[in-house]
Amino acid sequence: METIGKLVICGVGLIGGSVALALREAGVVKHIVGIGRSSESLLAARSAGVVDEIADGWSEALAGADFVLVATPVGQMDAVMAAMAPHLEPQTVVTDAGSTKRDVIEAVYRHLDANLARVVPSHPIAGAEKSGVGAAFSTLYQGRKVVVTPLPENDPAAIERVRAVWGACGAVLYQMSPQEHDRVFAAVSHLPHLLAFGLVHDLAQRANAEQLFSYAASGFRDFTRIAGGHPEMWRDICVANRQALLGELDAYLAELALLRAYLMSGDGAGLEGIFGEARDARNAWAEKHLNN
Amino acid sequence: METIGKLVICGVGLIGGSVALALREAGVVKHIVGIGRSSESLLAARSAGVVDEIADGWSEALAGADFVLVATPVGQMDAVMAAMAPHLEPQTVVTDAGSTKRDVIEAVYRHLDANLARVVPSHPIAGAEKSGVGAAFSTLYQGRKVVVTPLPENDPAAIERVRAVWGACGAVLYQMSPQEHDRVFAAVSHLPHLLAFGLVHDLAQRANAEQLFSYAASGFRDFTRIAGGHPEMWRDICVANRQALLGELDAYLAELALLRAYLMSGDGAGLEGIFGEARDARNAWAEKHLNN
Repeated sequence: METIGKLVICGVGLIGGSVALALREAGVVKHIVGIGRSSESLLAARSAGVVDEIADGWSEALAGADFVLVATPVGQMDAVMAAMAPHLEPQTVVTDAGSTKRDVIEAVYRHLDANLARVVPSHPIAGAEKSGVGAAFSTLYQGRKVVVTPLPENDPAAIERVRAVWGACGAVLYQMSPQEHDRVFAAVSHLPHLLAFGLVHDLAQRANAEQLFSYAASGFRDFTRIAGGHPEMWRDICVANRQALLGELDAYLAELALLRAYLMSGDGAGLEGIFGEARDARNAWAEKHLNN
Repeated sequence: METIGKLVICGVGLIGGSVALALREAGVVKHIVGIGRSSESLLAARSAGVVDEIADGWSEALAGADFVLVATPVGQMDAVMAAMAPHLEPQTVVTDAGSTKRDVIEAVYRHLDANLARVVPSHPIAGAEKSGVGAAFSTLYQGRKVVVTPLPENDPAAIERVRAVWGACGAVLYQMSPQEHDRVFAAVSHLPHLLAFGLVHDLAQRANAEQLFSYAASGFRDFTRIAGGHPEMWRDICVANRQALLGELDAYLAELALLRAYLMSGDGAGLEGIFGEARDARNAWAEKHLNN
């Protein structure tokens, strides 16, 4: 991959910080500039050597920039792109790491219409239990999927550049339409997060919450791991993708209504049928898609 | 611990097989007899050295038995106890490994009323993704909780014996009433399993299930790990504990109704409030209760 002279990362947390570390380790970046709303987090990123420099504003950040990664929660992307617009130079390629794509692309059309050839939206399917730059690590994207959702206006060379940058992080590249992306991830990511947050919140409110939690074991640990996610990031994802997410939630509520009816009538065969199909599907998935 | 001369395990799967392996490794058992409905599974257990002998029936199994562990799915325990009753000798101490306790205790009172002093119900809080004797291992109970729910009629020496046997497997002992046990585990174990089975079943039914599963990542992997559980075992647990489980399911449906209302109105602050409380509670739990 052609070396990036000046890389700008907006939002240097787990996602942005891990890209910085990965590209540095791959030796494909010369200078990394961090920008964002939290100076505390930016200072930590600079102390840790994740970024070389902290920009005071977008004018400074974007001067001579080769590549920009916007890795903020998706709720901030509209404002970030509005702020970038006046300073974006014609050579600069831009991508984002948002978990939703339709809302991000709406913001791109609203603010970056002069740069549509070189703004290529993407979504790395990677995360960790902890958030923040302190949790960043260079191998976060190793073997993970990154979905690129190009715009019709994109220059093929810019798409290739974005794919190459993620590839240098160790990721495996996929391509989808933004609509398809948002439907798929509502089902396999956004809904499970909503459900896990909901279960922990439900139990945490009880008078005997301490007792309940003290008997929770490894099943509970794994089921609720994703309830350790970043509240603001997940708020933004749920709001941005709420149309698809509501569709998924309602399908799931219909599933729970069926399970509830089986429980009410003590229909063991009905329950076992669902549990058996679920186990088979889950085992087949694990067989095919899990490396560990 | 005083050595067990003859140990009888009814249902030699993950749970029963792991007890056999643990007690053998601890050197506290002389002879282990397996009994159960699946001769295939019993033969595998004998080949693997998990049991020494397969009993043809309860008369043979219980003759001279010191200790009996019933480790079948809870739906079979009524029939197992009815079959044991005519052959149970006065010295034999009995426990079970059922994940529900009120229904098992009802079966004890129905069939083993002559032996109430020495039938001490218990529940090991341990499991694994796979079931069957092939998945059994000697350290399954190491550091795990076992809840004993003694009967008022229990001989204190028999309670001590059951605690000592689980202790020899490496478990940490707790004691609760059966009612309290069933309420607690409906919340922290049975409901999460129902929810995970439901989600996988919901997605597996879709026309685009293959595509959905192909983008499922580590969050989905952990959230649905418990959907790999044994369908019959979980059917029995759900049916046996359906009163408490329905209460938990309805509380959770109320939580989902709240989340749904926030999604419908795009109330980001409402969502973030729930997510934040859930994350804090989950992190506090992990801090206090997880060793890893």
